[in-house]
Amino acid sequence: MEQANLFQEIVSLCKRRAVVFPSSEIYGGINSCWDYGPLGVELRRNLKDLWWKAVVQGHRNVVGADTSIIMHPEVWVASGHRDHFTDPLVDCKSCKQRFRADQIDLTKCPECGGQLTEPRSFNLMFKTYMGPVEDDAAQVFLRPETAQGIFVDFETIFNGSRGKLPFGIAQIGKSFRNEVSPGNFIFRSREFEQMELEFFVDPSTEDFWFDKWVKERLEWYVSIGINPERLRTRPHGPDELAHYAKACVDIEYLFPFGWKEIEGIANRGQFDLQVHARSSGKQLVVFDQVREENVVPSVIESSSGVDRILLVALVDAYEKEAERSVLRFHPTLAPTKVAVLPLMRKEPLVEKAVSLEEELRGSFTVEYDDAGSIGRRYRRQDESGTPYCLTVDYQSLEDDTVTIRFRDSMRQERLPVKGLTGRISELMKSREPMPVE
Amino acid sequence: MEQANLFQEIVSLCKRRAVVFPSSEIYGGINSCWDYGPLGVELRRNLKDLWWKAVVQGHRNVVGADTSIIMHPEVWVASGHRDHFTDPLVDCKSCKQRFRADQIDLTKCPECGGQLTEPRSFNLMFKTYMGPVEDDAAQVFLRPETAQGIFVDFETIFNGSRGKLPFGIAQIGKSFRNEVSPGNFIFRSREFEQMELEFFVDPSTEDFWFDKWVKERLEWYVSIGINPERLRTRPHGPDELAHYAKACVDIEYLFPFGWKEIEGIANRGQFDLQVHARSSGKQLVVFDQVREENVVPSVIESSSGVDRILLVALVDAYEKEAERSVLRFHPTLAPTKVAVLPLMRKEPLVEKAVSLEEELRGSFTVEYDDAGSIGRRYRRQDESGTPYCLTVDYQSLEDDTVTIRFRDSMRQERLPVKGLTGRISELMKSREPMPVE
Repeated sequence: MEQANLFQEIVSLCKRRAVVFPSSEIYGGINSCWDYGPLGVELRRNLKDLWWKAVVQGHRNVVGADTSIIMHPEVWVASGHRDHFTDPLVDCKSCKQRFRADQIDLTKCPECGGQLTEPRSFNLMFKTYMGPVEDDAAQVFLRPETAQGIFVDFETIFNGSRGKLPFGIAQIGKSFRNEVSPGNFIFRSREFEQMELEFFVDPSTEDFWFDKWVKERLEWYVSIGINPERLRTRPHGPDELAHYAKACVDIEYLFPFGWKEIEGIANRGQFDLQVHARSSGKQLVVFDQVREENVVPSVIESSSGVDRILLVALVDAYEKEAERSVLRFHPTLAPTKVAVLPLMRKEPLVEKAVSLEEELRGSFTVEYDDAGSIGRRYRRQDESGTPYCLTVDYQSLEDDTVTIRFRDSMRQERLPVKGLTGRISELMKSREPMPVE
Repeated sequence: MEQANLFQEIVSLCKRRAVVFPSSEIYGGINSCWDYGPLGVELRRNLKDLWWKAVVQGHRNVVGADTSIIMHPEVWVASGHRDHFTDPLVDCKSCKQRFRADQIDLTKCPECGGQLTEPRSFNLMFKTYMGPVEDDAAQVFLRPETAQGIFVDFETIFNGSRGKLPFGIAQIGKSFRNEVSPGNFIFRSREFEQMELEFFVDPSTEDFWFDKWVKERLEWYVSIGINPERLRTRPHGPDELAHYAKACVDIEYLFPFGWKEIEGIANRGQFDLQVHARSSGKQLVVFDQVREENVVPSVIESSSGVDRILLVALVDAYEKEAERSVLRFHPTLAPTKVAVLPLMRKEPLVEKAVSLEEELRGSFTVEYDDAGSIGRRYRRQDESGTPYCLTVDYQSLEDDTVTIRFRDSMRQERLPVKGLTGRISELMKSREPMPVE
């Protein structure tokens, strides 16, 4: 299938099944804001949870934080965002449309051929006012990244945790950027959720930790079931590097619209703690017991976005077959783990199915469905990415077994109801959670 | 201890241990914005997860959503927030301070005795501009509640899930209110996280479902370990009811500063879907198969806040004893489940402790600590609310056992290392997760 069509099919599946769709649609929508429905929100939860378990709970020396979206405005002066987090904009003097000056040929308006204004800087931070007076003193910003909250709290968290270098602080939270050209569905939006790790290290070890995190983060995508052939790393050339970065590697994924960044890992050196120390007048240092001196830690950053990885998960899992559409999520990612289906909407099939559903609900996300033919119900679950369908039929009433149907192979086998929760948990953790024979 | 001192002690513990503390502190802080550190963020995660498991995953007919913070501005016109979500404000003509007109005697300024202006309405929604032009057409708001996202998406989610009444949609997410007088630590802040359920029912059944949810939500607080004697329900009198509500019950908790609302359960009738239907021109109805007619569902709402419940959890768990401060969290709430402590920082004690830590880390939040006397380390864990401390001593090297110490009773017993993960999981799920003998 053509890649553009494939992508359109995914977008339309997401709308139809209420996975993710434009915000405020009954009012005509609002550009580049997205709402997640039942399947989408469970997928988000699973992604965030897998990231947190891997990055925070999996490392003795990484802790979590959750800092506020609205921060003291001086934070953005110190970080450079207030003065430099800008895009160059031009207006067309005839049709009044706006464009990013770095994305078009500046000789004539690409829409009407009219004359363009000189480029000017447009700051991407959303601003608002705290308190009842709308003046400069009350002006605050919605954070454009979660990282600064971590830098600003470094000392409190490091000391409060009795930290030692290397020491990581990780955060998941919303950020906002007033992008001039958002797009590609949820790939680039104005409101999005970041997952960032700032890993503080002794400056003499920064190269070692940088390489280690690039490797670990790449492996994480494979561990959640993403096809390794559609993943690659791309080091930034010296001309691409941000002014604060000593090195940067993008992890890229092959979307239907090409290879695109899904995560950046950067060696930010001592830049961040140094600028905040200078601006705040605090000493943001760590005492090195061996050298008996204060050290400004260097920072290795891993920065990714929930919405973008969710798009990776969707694109990577989607497959159109002759008879069905399937989302082949790894079972740990799948929004619904188990569907319970009575063969027909008839007693005592329904009673048995409902009691099974209630038992499983304590351990998994479960859907119960008794509407329509069993074939249609299977296909509906395939399209939601549900790995395991359990069918209660007449034999179930006799020998207390059910049919388990595996999403990927569509293979079926009978399993005793007794011990089913444990059996499904084991399957999900096993090397072959979707057995083919 | 005096209640005000008790509260001050909790606030100071939260700062010292980096549980929760003012945002942007190195820049002097920003009024009423709070950052959560390592222990705080795990406590938040546990609370949100317990709510989600109870409200969403525990009910076949409740699904989740995650809608955007910035929505179409017409949403707030329809809901009434743009015109009526206001506080009355007065200014002092002498000292220029501002006050809520409904909270002071309006004859003279409470600070300097000066003359006050006439009260005027101040809208509590934060506003900002989307896109590069700051004009009325680009003005948008940060949502003051998550509920409206659910109402606006009702049709898409109901149809996408092939819903039937009764049908609930639940959401956890940030909201913003430009409060004139925030305060009481994290009790009332300008940026906060809500947990809301909108439960859509046939209007003829609304009283039944209202009562059912009041009961279920009250029981939830007891299930997460909150002292039932500090919980009560308080029905709103007819004069207190919001214009859209037919009935409302607050769940209140006895804080050191008095009984305060921690959750509101409201029967909102058909108000919400009716106003959005009228404003958007869509038919927000459900077809009733029995009566063969369209019905506008009524809404039963449960609305609570993560930050506020987290404060309940802290206040309820905190106890000052002669020798120690303890946070007696229910183990499912506790940020750190298990601490692994080698008796001394010596091999082969450390090696054995580290290998135990790594094994447990796959299943629980674990802290490893080998710094200081074992008594001090126990007290540090008590103060973090860690229910189980495992000590590796010389006997451990001989018989492969460890000492488990229970936080509440400080009782110790020996357990084999083999099977420890399973034993701790069982303990946490048992009726007596903190055994006293």
